[in-house]
This record gives sequence, C-alpha cells and structure tokens, in this order.
Amino acid sequence: MVKNTYCVIMAGGVGARFWPKSRKTMPKQFLDILGTGKSFIRSTFERFLPIVPKENFLVVTNQSYKELVLEHLPELTDKQVLCEPIGRNTAPCIAYAAYSLLKQDPDARMIVTPSDHLVLNEPDFQSIINECLEFATAEGALMTVGIQPTRPETGYGYIQKSNNERISRVKCFTEKPNLELAQTFVECGEFFWNSGIFIWSVKAIVEAFQHHLPEHHALFSSILNDYGTEREKTAIEQVFSECKAISIDYGVMEKADNVYVRCGDFGWSDVGTWGSVYQLSEKDKYENAVVAEACYTYSTERTFISLPKGKIAVVNGLKDYIIVDTPDALLICPRSEEQSIKNYIDDVRFENGEKFI
Amino acid sequence: MVKNTYCVIMAGGVGARFWPKSRKTMPKQFLDILGTGKSFIRSTFERFLPIVPKENFLVVTNQSYKELVLEHLPELTDKQVLCEPIGRNTAPCIAYAAYSLLKQDPDARMIVTPSDHLVLNEPDFQSIINECLEFATAEGALMTVGIQPTRPETGYGYIQKSNNERISRVKCFTEKPNLELAQTFVECGEFFWNSGIFIWSVKAIVEAFQHHLPEHHALFSSILNDYGTEREKTAIEQVFSECKAISIDYGVMEKADNVYVRCGDFGWSDVGTWGSVYQLSEKDKYENAVVAEACYTYSTERTFISLPKGKIAVVNGLKDYIIVDTPDALLICPRSEEQSIKNYIDDVRFENGEKFI
Repeated sequence: MVKNTYCVIMAGGVGARFWPKSRKTMPKQFLDILGTGKSFIRSTFERFLPIVPKENFLVVTNQSYKELVLEHLPELTDKQVLCEPIGRNTAPCIAYAAYSLLKQDPDARMIVTPSDHLVLNEPDFQSIINECLEFATAEGALMTVGIQPTRPETGYGYIQKSNNERISRVKCFTEKPNLELAQTFVECGEFFWNSGIFIWSVKAIVEAFQHHLPEHHALFSSILNDYGTEREKTAIEQVFSECKAISIDYGVMEKADNVYVRCGDFGWSDVGTWGSVYQLSEKDKYENAVVAEACYTYSTERTFISLPKGKIAVVNGLKDYIIVDTPDALLICPRSEEQSIKNYIDDVRFENGEKFI
Repeated sequence: MVKNTYCVIMAGGVGARFWPKSRKTMPKQFLDILGTGKSFIRSTFERFLPIVPKENFLVVTNQSYKELVLEHLPELTDKQVLCEPIGRNTAPCIAYAAYSLLKQDPDARMIVTPSDHLVLNEPDFQSIINECLEFATAEGALMTVGIQPTRPETGYGYIQKSNNERISRVKCFTEKPNLELAQTFVECGEFFWNSGIFIWSVKAIVEAFQHHLPEHHALFSSILNDYGTEREKTAIEQVFSECKAISIDYGVMEKADNVYVRCGDFGWSDVGTWGSVYQLSEKDKYENAVVAEACYTYSTERTFISLPKGKIAVVNGLKDYIIVDTPDALLICPRSEEQSIKNYIDDVRFENGEKFI
C-alpha cells in the first residue's frame, strides 16, 4: 500500500434500470441488489482497501447523495466526498478529482472506478490493479482494464488491443456494438469489455486534459487555489455550469496515444439490468432466482423474484418473468421486456410526478 | 321499523379464500375487498338499519373478533356481541342468538344474515325482508331468501320451491351441485340460490330446535337464566364444548315442514372468491379490474389487481391473473387456480408457522 495511491469512486449515477428498487433518492450504488449484505459502493470501497489507504479515497457524487455516501462509507471524512452540482458525464467528474489531487499531492497515482459493478475474484483483481499502477507510474501511461468477454454482449463498450502482451497499447475503443459486430469481436480475440476502470498518475491525466480537452483543463485548473477551501463549492458550481458534458472515453482515451489496456478475467459484471442480476443469482431447480425471506413458487420457471425484507410471496404460473416488489411499488414484467422499464418510469412520472421515481 | 324485530349477524368466519388480504386475525367480514369504502360487516349492518333498530342487532362471532366487531359497528354495545368460544357451524351460532332473544323478548322476530355478502339493490332487498317478516309472523313459518340464479354456479347451495307463489313452501335443499346438475337446476326454473338469510319468530325457531335438534335445545335452554348475566360466558363455554357442530340447513331447515322461501333478484353475491370479486369489479377496456391508487398495465388482460393503500404497480404480460398485494405477502396466480389458495396457505404455514396466515 503506497501513500500516494488514491482511489476515485464515481458515484453520481441514478440507475433507473433498477426501478422500482432504485429511485432518484436511492440509486443503484447504494443498494444491495444481489443480496450480498453490502451495497455496491461499500463493496467497491472494500475491494480497493487492500491497495489504497482509507484517507486516500475520493467519492465524486451528486450533492444530494453526499449523506448517503458517508452513511455507506463511514470511514471517509466530509472532505473526501466531492459533490458535483450537476452530472456532466465522466470527464468533468474525473477532472474534478484529478485537479483536486493535483493540488493535494502532485505525485498522486490515481485509480478511477465505477461504484456499482461486481467483481467476484478480488485477489486477482487487486494484483491486476497493482500491476497497472506500476506500469502507469513507470510509463506515464493512461491505463484501462479490459475484461475477457464470455458472450457477445451488446450492452458494453469494447477495447481492441494492438498486441498480445499482458499490457498492450490500445488500438481502438468501440461503443456498444450490435449483435453481429459483438459476435465478430468475441471470435476475433482482440476485443475486451471496457470495465470503466482507469489507472494513471495525476500528472499524466492532467496533461491529457491539457491536450485533448483544453477547455476543461482551463476551467478546472483555474480554481486550483479553491480546492479544499470554503470557496470550493461556489467555484465548482461555476465550473460545472460552464463545462461541456463529455465522457472520458470519448474526450481523452480515444484521442491520447499513451493509452494501454491490461486484460483480465476476474468475474466482472457491470450488473446493468435485472436480467444480469438474474444471471448472477443462485437459482433453484426450476431456474428461479429468489431474493426474499420466503417465496412459494408453483409452475414458475426462470423467474427472478426480489421482495422487501420480511415479505413473502406465492407465485404461480410465471415463466421468464421479473418480479420486483418494494414497499410502495411493484413491478411484474417478462424478462424479455426489461428494456421497457424506462418507458414504465416515464408513464409513472407522467401521471404521478416524482413520487415513485 | 318494529321494536320486536331483531337482526342476528353471523360473523365468526375465517375466510381463508381471500388470503393474503384476509388473515386469521382479520377475516373477510372486516375487509373492504370490493373497494366500496366499507367493510362487509359494516355494509351488512347498514343494509338492515332501515328495518331494525340499532339496539336490536346481535353479532355472533368468535371471542377473538369481539373488538373488531365493536370497532366496525361502534353503534353496538358490548352486550350485543355474542362470543362463541369455538366455531360449531351455523346451528349452535343461531341457537345462541335465538335463546338469548327468547329470554330478552319472547315475541322477538329474528332475521339471521351472513356478515360478508354483497347486496346491490338495497331497497328491493329491504322490501323482501319486510315481506318475509310479515309472513313469518303471520304463519309461524321458517323463511329463507332464495336468489334467482343467473348462471350454473357450483359454489352455492340451491333451494327448490314447490309452487309459483311469491312465497312458496320449500320442496328441497341441495348442497353445492356439480356443473351438470347446476345446469339442470338453472334451466328447470324451480331452483334458487340459498342466500343463507333466514327470517322467523324466536318462538318458531326454538320450537324447531326442540323438534329437530333436541340435544341443542336442551343445552341452550338449560342456561336460559344465564344469558345477559356475568355467568353467560362460562355457561356458553360449557354448552359449546358439549354441542355438536351442525349447519342450520342440515339440522333444521331440511327437516322442518313449515319452511318457506321468498325468491328475489336484488344483486346478491356471496363474494366467495377472488374470481367473484373480479366479476363484480369495474373493468377497464382490457377487462382488467384494478383496486389501487395507480396501476400501469401493458399487454395485460382480464386480470384482477389489488394493492395496498399508497402503492402502485407496473404489470406487463399477464392474462387472466389474480395479483393481490399486502404489506407482508404477495399473491400472483392464474384466475383458474384460485381454488389452490388453500394449498398455498398450507405450504406457507408448513414453513413459516402462523405468521402470515
């Protein structure tokens, strides 16, 4: 564990795809969707704790989630939670953390991670992150972590590597492909899932902003004196109101020439949909996955059932369904229709306002 | 409204068929299953209030429901709730009320009614009851009310009348028939549904007990001095522990020769199952019946949905289902499987004990 290693957890997402369990006031990263006993953000924090001293974590989130972050990560101080006044995609989020660290510790090495993914094999994961930290420091590289694909997933971005080294220069980033392209990617062997995890020195990423997103560089470096002071809140509000929303992949990674990928296979999932939760869950002999104290199923197969604490259900005659119950909203829909959840939310909002959103 | 007219509401049932909404601690008669804003027992009470002075109601129920009865019918005094120590079917229930009234008012005219049925046309109903009261008083008859059948229902008992008079002597009582027999009954025109409502003078029913259920007569008349005193509770416990469980139909009505039926058509239902609640409920253009603040249905037809207050649901892809949600138990089952609810309860009880029953 090295004193100048920092971990930046990006936790500003709303996660509407897990409605009705996720809400605007309680997004996915604060939920224990998989029934592990820990929220995603808590698991993420603990996953990096063997590598990063607890005082070196930063969480970037929306102002409205600050209390939730501190509740889930009571080891952190108030100052370790950076509040975005508004979501502007990943580049401004990462810039906020990077320029804060630039002031605090110019030799900082920085890991950036989503707050709501799953990693099953933590030891393998940690040794890969350590390897990336060393490489990034030695080479001034912008490192990404790629995941060995196991299926032609159309919901992920892909990274193409340029050679067979364990750590390879990146040839190309690709947004979510269609099924045909995804199949070609998986067969070809050069393509890996983009985990959204980045490792770099603060100097390297700041330099990359300077070259590839000069407006963002100008904005975030202009308030360097304000980070960590009582002026920070006002300053960052101004910067966020002026800076363009753009992803780090599109704004920096696809353009820089010192981008490398370390590919691995450590039981990763972005747990992006109820369907992926179903896939990851333990199933009974009828392939039902039940997250509940008790559930009685009859003529029911390949169905995912999630109930609130203390609640039971009797379910008869459903095949390939998602049933998610919460104290104030119940969802019953075919697994094949899970992409419609956003439409359901729109319909609920249209009639009921924000109450159930 | 005549001072010696009394109404006995039988409210001891458990109503397991409405699980998970009905529970041992909250049976059907105390629920507002149809979303009318009133419980069944409250509606029953109000239905008879134009005919019977409020101090002339008696409710016979289990000891454990006494507080619930007084909560739903705050017009009643403690003494108007007769508590059975144990359910012994309808004959002992009616005997308890009849012999209590015999002591209190030997000239009493007595209406006996279930507590959990529906009547849509109350004016017609009330004029039929008044007609029955007059006939029963004039003729010393044991009167029943028959319902014009609208379908070959196999869940009801039938009464065959012996002629075409408005009030006819009963030829025969029949228990729940099979479908073939029910079809014959409906076509034949002589058969009517047994509403479980009886009208008679106390003298006539006591005389009938004396002839047809002499053991019950002996038991209930032996404690005549105890009704309305502080000895009543102990005395009635003794009587119930000794008396045989038997229905009034089987024990008295099928045997007596002064049994008459007044047939009518006043929008009656025993509301015996979720299916009958579905049939009685208002439906949307996809024939869904929803009892909820808000429910968003997609590709969903002929489905009954009942949600707790303040809860919403999104339901996609269900045809002919029953969805009943409560704070601690959810039921999803095909409408064709509603007779399985008793099996579900057995399975829940086997694993979870009485908690959700």
